[in-house]
Amino acid sequence: MSVLIVGSTALDSIKTPTAENPRLLGGSASHAAVAASFFAPVKLIGVVGDDFPKKYVQLYRKHGIDLSGLQVESGKTFHWSGEYEVNMNNRRTLLTELGVFEKFTPHLPDAHKRSPFVLLANIAPGLQHHVLDQMARPKFVVADTMDLWLNIALDDLIRLLRRIDGFVLNDSEAHQLTKEDNVFAAMKKIHRLGPKYVIIKKGSHGSILSSPKGAFICPAYPLQRVMDPTGAGDSFVGGLMGYLSTARGAIDANIRRAMIYGSVVASFCCEGFGLNRTTRIARRDIDKRVKELTALTRF
Amino acid sequence: MSVLIVGSTALDSIKTPTAENPRLLGGSASHAAVAASFFAPVKLIGVVGDDFPKKYVQLYRKHGIDLSGLQVESGKTFHWSGEYEVNMNNRRTLLTELGVFEKFTPHLPDAHKRSPFVLLANIAPGLQHHVLDQMARPKFVVADTMDLWLNIALDDLIRLLRRIDGFVLNDSEAHQLTKEDNVFAAMKKIHRLGPKYVIIKKGSHGSILSSPKGAFICPAYPLQRVMDPTGAGDSFVGGLMGYLSTARGAIDANIRRAMIYGSVVASFCCEGFGLNRTTRIARRDIDKRVKELTALTRF
Repeated sequence: MSVLIVGSTALDSIKTPTAENPRLLGGSASHAAVAASFFAPVKLIGVVGDDFPKKYVQLYRKHGIDLSGLQVESGKTFHWSGEYEVNMNNRRTLLTELGVFEKFTPHLPDAHKRSPFVLLANIAPGLQHHVLDQMARPKFVVADTMDLWLNIALDDLIRLLRRIDGFVLNDSEAHQLTKEDNVFAAMKKIHRLGPKYVIIKKGSHGSILSSPKGAFICPAYPLQRVMDPTGAGDSFVGGLMGYLSTARGAIDANIRRAMIYGSVVASFCCEGFGLNRTTRIARRDIDKRVKELTALTRF
Repeated sequence: MSVLIVGSTALDSIKTPTAENPRLLGGSASHAAVAASFFAPVKLIGVVGDDFPKKYVQLYRKHGIDLSGLQVESGKTFHWSGEYEVNMNNRRTLLTELGVFEKFTPHLPDAHKRSPFVLLANIAPGLQHHVLDQMARPKFVVADTMDLWLNIALDDLIRLLRRIDGFVLNDSEAHQLTKEDNVFAAMKKIHRLGPKYVIIKKGSHGSILSSPKGAFICPAYPLQRVMDPTGAGDSFVGGLMGYLSTARGAIDANIRRAMIYGSVVASFCCEGFGLNRTTRIARRDIDKRVKELTALTRF
């Protein structure tokens, strides 16, 4: 089955202590869509300006991503610029130019409205609602978010939590939302807000699922060197939803393995700037790392 | 087979935002010895003053710990006092009274010198050397340490690394020792200093092994509430060595499972002040959590 993915489609300019990469293909939907594309047909919903490089359109197409829901508006593509510190854990935003994103209203082509799997990648909760409003009974809806929306659109986000099956957020966001230091206590509180599946991402420490069939501790694939972690969380949830949408059987039977696949795609994402590394791998590279990760966790 | 454990034997006064517990049984050797005692006969090497409460001697005995290497000197028992912040991650030392520990020189009874498994729990590296000097060809030696020794006894510690099979330290200590932010890069560097087995502890994020037969990502047992994390690392390595010393077969065949057992004993440690919780459990409680942890990591 296919996955519908809405989120940001952007140009990212990323500085690290050793390199500077201007105007890379970025945005939550770009990372998530490429990640999901290794497993399932992907329908992308987003907006770009008329300055959006043709090579990036070709890159989406190379991954078989359906672009009939990608709006091209006159104006500039959303541009984000950020800088990482030496240890790659802290980053600061240097610049945010919303461009055509400022007036973005997602319109779903009719063919998209019946997509069974929906990923509401990181974007304003109001837009996530707007996409759901247009959908006809999706089978499984997962939303991601970021600290910004907890700060400026908390009510919208809380309302969204009642409409989705799965919610993915990182540990500091979970703390911000629930005031709980303990991730397991935080997940319990988040369940009460709606989602049956709660996944907390912990960067290089992996992720944790809390679900109707119990919890799962998902490891991160070990990397000796991180080039650029931008988009790793989006890659994780994109890979997860891509895998889930084509796996046979119940969600509960597949979601753990889906997290492992998401974790592995995220590891590739970290090994290059923007989508440079992720767009150069094949499904067999992912399967190889899943095997390795399996071996790393067996006892 | 039995485990010889040397380390500190202390009285700990521990403050948290909600409680204050004076003069608990503490010290690295106490925590490690009790943890190991669930799996194997334990020989404790340490020193206490003549103020050491009889009830703590009885507690050691209840766990079948051989106390023929526990020296009782006239003077005060080592007393440590610390305070935890709300989130239980940061603690500060309020007081350190070395007492009889200041002049401690471990003397091994003859019967102890042939112990096959040796745990050099956290204590000055000079004393860890002194214990090894008295041993006749132990089968497997593991050392733990702390940031203090990296600061004031680095040369002794570096020399020790060439004499041991396994080295256990936490992530911030690994960073301090190697200047590497990445744990996998840090472990590689630590191997070059001597130990074939390097284990980095990451608190609630679990631990990681690097060994001749590859790496292992060991999860922490999930706790919704941490009462007092003091001694959790000592419990981890104590449980690990206790399990290893009685497991049949090669170290490589058992060390992963040994880490899982260590991780579970550490989880009990965190659920009570000092050794209050750990001394109230039985082997079956440990086995139950190991089963749960197994289920939490399968995919």
